[in-house]
Amino acid sequence: MLTIRRLTVVALLAALLGVHAVAEEGMWTFDHPPTAAIQQKYGFAVTPDWLEHLRLSSVRFNDGGSGSFVSADGLVLTNHHVALGQLQKLSTEQRDYVSGGFAAASRADEIKATDLELNVLMSYEDVTARIAEASTRAANSQAALEARRAAIAQIEKESLDKTGLRSDVVSLYQGAQYWLYRYKKYTDVRLVFAPEQQMAFFGGDPDNFTFPRYDLDFALFRVYENDAPIRAPHFLKWNAKGAVENELVFVTGHPGSTDRNDTVAELETLRDVIYPANIQVVKRRIALLKQFAARGPEQARQAADITFSLENAMKVYTGEYNGLLDPKIMARKTADERTLRAAVDKNPQLRGSYASAWEDISRAETANRRLYKSQRFGQIRGSGFAGLGLSIVHYVLELKKPDGQRLNGYHDAQLQSTLRGLLSPAPVYAALEEALLADALQESLEELGPEHAFVKAALAGRSSKDAAAALIGGSKLADPAVRKQLVDGGETAINQSTDPLIVLGRALEPLMRQITDTVEKEVTSVESAARQKIGQARFAVYGTSVYPDATFTLRLSYGAVKGYPMNGTLAPYKTTFAGLYDRSASFDGKEPFNLVPRFIEGRAKLDLATPLDFVTTNDIIGGNSGSPVVNKAGELVGLIFDGNIESLVGRFVYDEATNNRAVAVHSGAIVHTLRTIYGAGALADELESGRTAAAR
Amino acid sequence: MLTIRRLTVVALLAALLGVHAVAEEGMWTFDHPPTAAIQQKYGFAVTPDWLEHLRLSSVRFNDGGSGSFVSADGLVLTNHHVALGQLQKLSTEQRDYVSGGFAAASRADEIKATDLELNVLMSYEDVTARIAEASTRAANSQAALEARRAAIAQIEKESLDKTGLRSDVVSLYQGAQYWLYRYKKYTDVRLVFAPEQQMAFFGGDPDNFTFPRYDLDFALFRVYENDAPIRAPHFLKWNAKGAVENELVFVTGHPGSTDRNDTVAELETLRDVIYPANIQVVKRRIALLKQFAARGPEQARQAADITFSLENAMKVYTGEYNGLLDPKIMARKTADERTLRAAVDKNPQLRGSYASAWEDISRAETANRRLYKSQRFGQIRGSGFAGLGLSIVHYVLELKKPDGQRLNGYHDAQLQSTLRGLLSPAPVYAALEEALLADALQESLEELGPEHAFVKAALAGRSSKDAAAALIGGSKLADPAVRKQLVDGGETAINQSTDPLIVLGRALEPLMRQITDTVEKEVTSVESAARQKIGQARFAVYGTSVYPDATFTLRLSYGAVKGYPMNGTLAPYKTTFAGLYDRSASFDGKEPFNLVPRFIEGRAKLDLATPLDFVTTNDIIGGNSGSPVVNKAGELVGLIFDGNIESLVGRFVYDEATNNRAVAVHSGAIVHTLRTIYGAGALADELESGRTAAAR
Repeated sequence: MLTIRRLTVVALLAALLGVHAVAEEGMWTFDHPPTAAIQQKYGFAVTPDWLEHLRLSSVRFNDGGSGSFVSADGLVLTNHHVALGQLQKLSTEQRDYVSGGFAAASRADEIKATDLELNVLMSYEDVTARIAEASTRAANSQAALEARRAAIAQIEKESLDKTGLRSDVVSLYQGAQYWLYRYKKYTDVRLVFAPEQQMAFFGGDPDNFTFPRYDLDFALFRVYENDAPIRAPHFLKWNAKGAVENELVFVTGHPGSTDRNDTVAELETLRDVIYPANIQVVKRRIALLKQFAARGPEQARQAADITFSLENAMKVYTGEYNGLLDPKIMARKTADERTLRAAVDKNPQLRGSYASAWEDISRAETANRRLYKSQRFGQIRGSGFAGLGLSIVHYVLELKKPDGQRLNGYHDAQLQSTLRGLLSPAPVYAALEEALLADALQESLEELGPEHAFVKAALAGRSSKDAAAALIGGSKLADPAVRKQLVDGGETAINQSTDPLIVLGRALEPLMRQITDTVEKEVTSVESAARQKIGQARFAVYGTSVYPDATFTLRLSYGAVKGYPMNGTLAPYKTTFAGLYDRSASFDGKEPFNLVPRFIEGRAKLDLATPLDFVTTNDIIGGNSGSPVVNKAGELVGLIFDGNIESLVGRFVYDEATNNRAVAVHSGAIVHTLRTIYGAGALADELESGRTAAAR
Repeated sequence: MLTIRRLTVVALLAALLGVHAVAEEGMWTFDHPPTAAIQQKYGFAVTPDWLEHLRLSSVRFNDGGSGSFVSADGLVLTNHHVALGQLQKLSTEQRDYVSGGFAAASRADEIKATDLELNVLMSYEDVTARIAEASTRAANSQAALEARRAAIAQIEKESLDKTGLRSDVVSLYQGAQYWLYRYKKYTDVRLVFAPEQQMAFFGGDPDNFTFPRYDLDFALFRVYENDAPIRAPHFLKWNAKGAVENELVFVTGHPGSTDRNDTVAELETLRDVIYPANIQVVKRRIALLKQFAARGPEQARQAADITFSLENAMKVYTGEYNGLLDPKIMARKTADERTLRAAVDKNPQLRGSYASAWEDISRAETANRRLYKSQRFGQIRGSGFAGLGLSIVHYVLELKKPDGQRLNGYHDAQLQSTLRGLLSPAPVYAALEEALLADALQESLEELGPEHAFVKAALAGRSSKDAAAALIGGSKLADPAVRKQLVDGGETAINQSTDPLIVLGRALEPLMRQITDTVEKEVTSVESAARQKIGQARFAVYGTSVYPDATFTLRLSYGAVKGYPMNGTLAPYKTTFAGLYDRSASFDGKEPFNLVPRFIEGRAKLDLATPLDFVTTNDIIGGNSGSPVVNKAGELVGLIFDGNIESLVGRFVYDEATNNRAVAVHSGAIVHTLRTIYGAGALADELESGRTAAAR
């Protein structure tokens, strides 16, 4: 554990060196919590037991998101928008759980999610030395990358065999550290409750990533094993009173990725090449989906989930891109980099080990810019279903190789989770997939030209539309059993298949491998080594009281419940149900500010002064969706579901002056609506007591 | 009236020349309404009768603000913050109408405002030719200025004698036009209703100049003549339904001043000299007032009105100053000026008449910058009461001169209104005046140094504190009768007076005259002539379909009820009472978001979906406070009380892209609260029916 003295020295150094370390910054790993800083600022002692309870109560949604156990009977709380994919997969034209919501009347009515995997981080250990050793004898950076991969696969497999736990080696601090994370894995996860999407996502795309906010963005699942709810040894006690203004709160969760330690060369590629392309693609796809949805209500239902994701992405990308375009932010990144490089250059030993890294990355980024179009547009995109053919081919071919040489995702320790995706029984909407594929193929044609190998293979002389119709229309892969036969049948089955998506997959596999190899040789392996050096240089100069970029692994952040200056006035620290009715009425109830009937009719049942959402200074990012907000007593006081518009630049830099805030649903809002609006008092009782009535 | 063809040609010219004329821009005089533009954009024909009714229903509050007749029985609607000065003057330690509100139980309980003068614009006529003729024979710009002043005084006096109406000659288009405005004047104005200031100004300084907003910023007066309510021949019919989204609405009122036609040299002085000084003075004075208010509740009550004004000014100045600091805005002003000058230079005749004007102003601004400190800090400031001594001396000495040579404000036609101010029976709070004067004297000492003539005369060797104590403590001018004796006694009385404020006034009068003369010679007269040339050049180049800068004369603006993009999401076009309760609860009811008891206890009586405030695209500025918002039928649908934060740059430029909005109280909110919360149903009935019950 860090001492206060140590931190003070580091903070001083950081100040001298121009690193803008601020109070609430950081997505901290559990091996390395900012105990001293929390003690110093808030006078609260984070203990190992307190941390362990929090960690074992935290849940990762493997398809991207966070959650927490909230009852001894295996109830898991997350966001509605984290549950959305599963809600859509469980829905049909006749019963739409997305728009209508879902409430299990009894235990027997809880329905199994189609392909959901939840993970709980049971243990973690530093394997940096072992990985480092494996690559010391490598001749070049590509060989070193391969050696590290082999060592990783080996460690994961050993661990899986030994513990039976999902075992992932993760690279932290840009590869300056490697850790083995072991997860307990749950795959029988049943839907218990979800409000109507309109109430979870009230205000829609306009209000997304903003505050004040009035969203009930929550859903409840229950974890089963052997067809019975688990006895959760750790869960968060519900505190319906929530947190008061300025109260210290913690967030645990799985932030997906940040680029705070990227070099300026990397940021420039993002700014000049990748973000413009991303924004263009997303804009195009949203336009297509709106056309598709206009065909009828069932088409609208089918397109809703992906449209929602893309609109969300569009708002994120735009905010992040604006951050990159902000000269102040780029100037700060440039100054920070200059400071670190100067410190490295001043010390002969550091200079010898690390000084070349920035130039290495700069060179690799030149290659990255050159290869980007081929890499991005030279693959099957748009339709997840169309991509299944190539994925099955990949799966079969990767499995032929020794574990250590396989691509990430195909290591033995990962196969079970990968297969769950490949064989998911989720429904396939052929017309939607066809429209998406046609649009993406057309885009590839426009971006790469008709002579590009990918375009030739995919279109085979047809128009994008015709090609998509033939590929989707002719494929039998919508049936999971067909996919299973191919996977089980191995290379022979693949080679004999006449399914157009498999045929295309076979044709594309060598092309993909080639571009992957080129990128790996010219970009990935070079940058992997250089990033590691920069990570180590950062340790050498600033000490180890720093946190790594986000990697979809469990992190702890701390902060305070706090409003902020906004648009000439103040944003409050919370909103109330009265505000929900105000905002709806202020737009005359027009979409996306409409209320569902039970909220219109049930208004009198609600105490309108009940808090609905609130904001905190916790440092979070995408992947933290569904994270619990926890008070000093370890009680759940809220549920993270968003950041404000000011937080989007947080991908690149944390700056308190931008008034970035995490946005959460208030714990009290959830039980209040369950009791008053949804008639789900038993569920509210379970949340507030921590167990079901039967178990009490 | 302008034809459509004419407007189209002018618009085309404007587009070619780079003038950014946009749809809703403009504070139009009633002689020159933008009829064609309204017809073109909204398909509505503004008729002379419709305009006349609107004009004769509009009221000017002579101490700065607007209002309108809203019943046949002389009821006048304005903002609470326009009424605030009068409310404070009527309040005492025992009965505080500011914090407690006021509701006249019957006609007999309506109380006369201390020194309020209302004006209604009865007629207007172009007197440009007569003024121009007067100054054609002048030898230099200073003589021309004096000749124009004499002509103005002459015209005003003739008109007053002839019509008995208040007669003001106003200069429009920077002196390119002069108009005689004749007002019916009302001085028996009685307070009928005011809500608690907390409800009128809910959200206080933070929410000021922002939206969404939840303020009941209204007050009602009744106009009397001969101790009976007048029969108002024109008044606005109340429409409690208000306006729907995108509806065309009009605002009539008295915008105080804008600087949209200032040259870049003038704007630079504002940016570099005047705004920094303003902001510094206001900041300092607010700090002082907060100290004073901390002494006790009665001191807080006394300081409230002026603190309110200064905090309001601080927010305005900051917003305007930020506009001047915005390089985009300055670049646009520079480009606009360059375009106009180029057009003038290209035409030999225009060049001969006008080309020198910009350089003239530029030179005068150099003098202005040099003289600014002496002019600003070399006079009695801070305490209005302390300034009375000098004002009385001025009054007596000016009256000795022929009308035409007097300073503005002392012309025969203006004497009655000026005297009303000098002899106002409004209470004087000596301790407050002393604190304010001491602070301003100290500031003069710091800015000008101890050897400056003003500082020597005012301090006479004492500290600022001692000087202020002696001046305020020793003066008897708090008694209006004493002031009247001095005014009536003329020069003899002044010369014999030993009142320290009169003694100081006598000492300062020649100093003031000297600085005024210098400024007039080097700045005012030069710029007056040059501005007139630029105004004429603008007519010559762009035609006459433009509107003049604001001059606290009656203007018409048009626009639509419309929300706008804000901080990543949308601001709605209106708010509701539910939002009032949300915003209060979201700050846990802390000041300035607290509610008065009758709103806390009365919540159930309100229909929370009733609209409270709303926004429109009308072009307004300070002075428009209290302006009616009127629909096509000429009905009152709202009451302007503010602009949003985006509107503050409107002093210098109107730019639709900044999403500037006028903020208004909804007509329905006023009658709804009168009926439900205030038990003032009879008053609501009068508003909705247009007359009192007795008269119906």
